Amino acid sequence: MKEILSTQPYIGARDFYPEEMRIRNYIFDAWKRVCVRYGYEEYDFPILEPLEIFAAKTGEEIVKTQLFSFVDQGGRSLAIRPELTPGTVRMIAQKFNQLQKPIKWFMIGNNWRYERPQMGRGREFYQLEANIFGVNEISADFEIFNLVIDLMKEFGANSTMFELKYSDRKLINALLLDTLKLDDELAVQTRRLMDKRKKLTPEAFIEGCEKLGLTSDQADLINKFMFCEFNELSQIIPQEILSENAGYLNLVNLRKMIDDAKINEYCVFDPGIIRGFDYSDGLVYEVFDKNTKNRRSLFGGERFDKLIEIFGNLELVATGFAMGDWTLLEFLKNWNLLPELGSKTEYFVTVWPGEDTKYLEYSLKIGTLLRNAGKNTDTWLQTSSKLDKQLKYADKKGYKFAIIAGEDEISNKKVTIKNLKTAEQTTVEYNEFLKQLA
Amino acid sequence: MKEILSTQPYIGARDFYPEEMRIRNYIFDAWKRVCVRYGYEEYDFPILEPLEIFAAKTGEEIVKTQLFSFVDQGGRSLAIRPELTPGTVRMIAQKFNQLQKPIKWFMIGNNWRYERPQMGRGREFYQLEANIFGVNEISADFEIFNLVIDLMKEFGANSTMFELKYSDRKLINALLLDTLKLDDELAVQTRRLMDKRKKLTPEAFIEGCEKLGLTSDQADLINKFMFCEFNELSQIIPQEILSENAGYLNLVNLRKMIDDAKINEYCVFDPGIIRGFDYSDGLVYEVFDKNTKNRRSLFGGERFDKLIEIFGNLELVATGFAMGDWTLLEFLKNWNLLPELGSKTEYFVTVWPGEDTKYLEYSLKIGTLLRNAGKNTDTWLQTSSKLDKQLKYADKKGYKFAIIAGEDEISNKKVTIKNLKTAEQTTVEYNEFLKQLA
Repeated sequence: MKEILSTQPYIGARDFYPEEMRIRNYIFDAWKRVCVRYGYEEYDFPILEPLEIFAAKTGEEIVKTQLFSFVDQGGRSLAIRPELTPGTVRMIAQKFNQLQKPIKWFMIGNNWRYERPQMGRGREFYQLEANIFGVNEISADFEIFNLVIDLMKEFGANSTMFELKYSDRKLINALLLDTLKLDDELAVQTRRLMDKRKKLTPEAFIEGCEKLGLTSDQADLINKFMFCEFNELSQIIPQEILSENAGYLNLVNLRKMIDDAKINEYCVFDPGIIRGFDYSDGLVYEVFDKNTKNRRSLFGGERFDKLIEIFGNLELVATGFAMGDWTLLEFLKNWNLLPELGSKTEYFVTVWPGEDTKYLEYSLKIGTLLRNAGKNTDTWLQTSSKLDKQLKYADKKGYKFAIIAGEDEISNKKVTIKNLKTAEQTTVEYNEFLKQLA
Repeated sequence: MKEILSTQPYIGARDFYPEEMRIRNYIFDAWKRVCVRYGYEEYDFPILEPLEIFAAKTGEEIVKTQLFSFVDQGGRSLAIRPELTPGTVRMIAQKFNQLQKPIKWFMIGNNWRYERPQMGRGREFYQLEANIFGVNEISADFEIFNLVIDLMKEFGANSTMFELKYSDRKLINALLLDTLKLDDELAVQTRRLMDKRKKLTPEAFIEGCEKLGLTSDQADLINKFMFCEFNELSQIIPQEILSENAGYLNLVNLRKMIDDAKINEYCVFDPGIIRGFDYSDGLVYEVFDKNTKNRRSLFGGERFDKLIEIFGNLELVATGFAMGDWTLLEFLKNWNLLPELGSKTEYFVTVWPGEDTKYLEYSLKIGTLLRNAGKNTDTWLQTSSKLDKQLKYADKKGYKFAIIAGEDEISNKKVTIKNLKTAEQTTVEYNEFLKQLA
């Protein structure tokens, strides 16, 4: 007996039937369009990478438990990429000297993580990754902000639906290192705890800080910091530290640019934005859904000026973000922003049922003519189907026009055009029809 | 000491820098455009599939030695797909009853095989897969022929550059089973040897046949068959067998359609076309480069009416092909068919060098206005770069226009537009400039 195989995809991974594929194309096309509008160039790299590259960047949870990794027939350790940044930086490092700088690049790629699949999140996901390499000034981060906002606006989202919250890792240093005088190790641990702050009660957070060895005064100050307004910073961090702090000065400049460009409605300073990536060393930001029932982070980005050092003695500052397709799609659905995405096929050519091959030949020829005129056209291919069945098919497919050609049409070189929405039909000369198409 | 990582991609896999990505996009866009013009719908499925699905289809070389496979954290055996057909059929089987038939689908996907990387062939490759499911008539194969030819023509190829050679597996049965009366097992072994015929000398082929247990007369007849013209078939296979043979009758009909559509210049009957896929059970075809120095098969396709049976007690006839990106790209390069693919970015906004932030702000604003007018625009972001350096960058990038705004322009609300090809430049009112863009 033959073994019968499962028709399901691997758990947590998606089949894209034409309906889902239309949505995916809608999202990817918008991503591309906006990035190209900003002059960013598209690139790509293999989904399989040497394992070390992922170990080097984070060295944490992803590599240990979430990576799809294996050894190839030649003994090389490989992994399916769980994110796009390491490979991106690898490519930059590879042609470091040839590449014209600054570099503005984007890509759309599939990533895999071994996680428990759940609603709106699977084991594979796509991301748009966009970065600027080689610009130290805050103007680069400002451009990225504009890009992020325009990406969201391209889908019809507005400032009532999302906001971009930002802070700066160097400002966090002004608090932890310069104000509280923590040593580097304790500062890193404290920062990691701060990254979890929004999931904790104030008490649990304070307790966590004390466990790390902070005083309750220090913990209070950190907690206060994480919820303060920009103009309250000087109440927490002494003015003389602030005014010398690169992160603070960056933010002052960024805020002026945001004002000038009148994009304040989208951008909010939030010192509670920390992010988990150890390589972040400047601006950090996250885009949030403003839906009060589902106020979650959609995606984020940061400065990662020093990541390239894992590939050698290279210097190239970097800033950018990655935006996932699952969360975006959920956002679009929740805000009712997904348009009806109909068939791209406009014409359908029927075949008059009958033994004589002339019916099929006539229809095939019309199909060819329509395509040559640039019209997306599906042609029926069976010679014995009832016209009714064919028209039902066309209707279900959402086609606009059906071409019908029977005995009369063929002998008089005519075609009947049926509008499938209104059911109107007209018979015209074959040549006249072609003229109309041109 | 820090370990320094390699910047190379995994051996046999490709990084796509923006120049290579433009070429890839050029190819994929053409593939999509033509398939959509034929009313085919795009779909996709995960690059990781349960291992069994590949074992079931061919059970041969690919699975044993060429598959990238591993066991996941949950103990499931997985493989990175080496081809697109099994996953495609899996999706069809999964929603067998819901899907409107016939089904015309295409996808573009990345495949992986552990092979020795060589010029023009790597361990990963992309394929366009296009199929029709649910049409038994030869009209389906005929439509696929038209699609294949139009795909090649979309790249500028003509009938001096490529040809589509076809035969029919059932016609081969007329020879092996009905004429030579071989048993099924010997017929399969003979067919596999026939598939290698073009790589062998006539003597080696005859010898191979004899090793399988055929007489030298039988071997001669098979050899003669593989090089005969369509109208010589009856000299090899008795007319009474031919005229009852479904494959032969199919071919007669197909050849009439090819004549009617005047695509003879592209299509050649070639009984030497066998193909290695055991599931092929009707028309088989391959597209060949006609370059006399490099007369190789570019890609091929076939009927695979019974493949769906691996997913259960289902019936759905199928025909289609897969076309790879490496071979196509080589073909395009060899025939000099690759166009110059310039930057999609048209405008470049310079920043007048200076301490005052007004220069950057003015330039950023112009960048935004250009983008809002739908122009792809790259903006310089550094405030201290010499204009000369900026213009050199724009020139190397292949941009068309540079916008320059210094002291005069800013105070008089003007912009200077420099044509980077001709070096002409004009200064116009800001508002006038915007009007021109609209």
